[in-house]
Amino acid sequence: MSKTIAYVLYPGLTALDLVGPLTVTATLGAFEPEYRTVTVARERGPVDSDMPVGLVPTATFDEVRDPFAVVVPGGQAGTFAACADESLLAWIREASSAAEVTASVCTGSLILGAAGLLRGRKATTHWGFRDLLPTFGATPVARRWVEDGDVITAAGVSAGIDMALHLVGRLAGAQAARRVQLMIEYDPQPPLGPVDWTAVDPAALRPYVHQTVNAGLPHDSALAARLLG
Amino acid sequence: MSKTIAYVLYPGLTALDLVGPLTVTATLGAFEPEYRTVTVARERGPVDSDMPVGLVPTATFDEVRDPFAVVVPGGQAGTFAACADESLLAWIREASSAAEVTASVCTGSLILGAAGLLRGRKATTHWGFRDLLPTFGATPVARRWVEDGDVITAAGVSAGIDMALHLVGRLAGAQAARRVQLMIEYDPQPPLGPVDWTAVDPAALRPYVHQTVNAGLPHDSALAARLLG
Repeated sequence: MSKTIAYVLYPGLTALDLVGPLTVTATLGAFEPEYRTVTVARERGPVDSDMPVGLVPTATFDEVRDPFAVVVPGGQAGTFAACADESLLAWIREASSAAEVTASVCTGSLILGAAGLLRGRKATTHWGFRDLLPTFGATPVARRWVEDGDVITAAGVSAGIDMALHLVGRLAGAQAARRVQLMIEYDPQPPLGPVDWTAVDPAALRPYVHQTVNAGLPHDSALAARLLG
Repeated sequence: MSKTIAYVLYPGLTALDLVGPLTVTATLGAFEPEYRTVTVARERGPVDSDMPVGLVPTATFDEVRDPFAVVVPGGQAGTFAACADESLLAWIREASSAAEVTASVCTGSLILGAAGLLRGRKATTHWGFRDLLPTFGATPVARRWVEDGDVITAAGVSAGIDMALHLVGRLAGAQAARRVQLMIEYDPQPPLGPVDWTAVDPAALRPYVHQTVNAGLPHDSALAARLLG
């Protein structure tokens, strides 16, 4: 029986949050066909991302009821709108309850939180939004990805690639993870080296965080206020 | 005047080849609006990628005649079909002739080669396809990205992110590149460490390379034969 890894599309998601890990698990499926990667959205047809490219899912929520794994990408204002989208949260909650693994990338963890899936768990998200996790009962951790039982949350945007390689290792073993890594040639060489976290001040991003949360929740100022403390 | 960075979509491209660098330059555009990132294809409407997600461009080739930079993603069979698509090659050739920079990711460099843009240049591509570059007069180099004048080619799939950060540094300076890197939290931590290239045998990938080239060029066995030597 195939094991379906379902990536959730919603308006305004960050395209790389989706496409990074999607590429990792779909590449696993190319040589271990029991793993089947799909993209799901409310309807077939293009979904706007927060980048200049639209994204078209392969299935609808109704068509994918029992995924083996669920992955929720993050985004900017659209992600906060998703945090107040009850039918989206209901699908994620139901799919997650039977899934072996539920994962998120970047601010996607806040959607998991809004769905009630992070209560009492350690989790991470984009570095600028980490302070928002306690709103949903989660304990923020500053790591590339955080695994707490069957929930794995990744840090910002590109961290989804690392998280998904970890997921492939967990599901199919280190050899499979190495094979995927080689096929997508994930041997990173950031031209300016790693991020210097000692030079990063999250407070400098607060105006952007406020603007993003409020832009996503124009009709739910109560949730916006809870998130922004 | 805005500087348009145009990413080329064609059927069968690898989604991450596109979305990695796209995210880098579009994030630059968020704080330096003179840089405008667009995706272009023959027609509006979804283009199939080689991953379980469709991609929708923001413009057509006819609408983007004078890009400041052109970026061509790679793929599998679809990329070799693109190497024989004269109207696609004509657009790339014309756009490139006036552009400040022409770039590729993964096997996208073979499309640049088919367009005649790599003659006498050093270039790279996905590690499994590097031997095919001399078909188009290019000298293969085993590096994460290779800059030869106004042409920059990146290695496989995920290398497009590193290449695009280099491009941002070239265009807008190191501070801008660092800012983009931080926003997309590109601080990679491959769970199993870097690729161990001493354990990689490109010959093992030859059957896949042959199959991919032949699948993309069913009506152009002459080009397939040239590519496969």
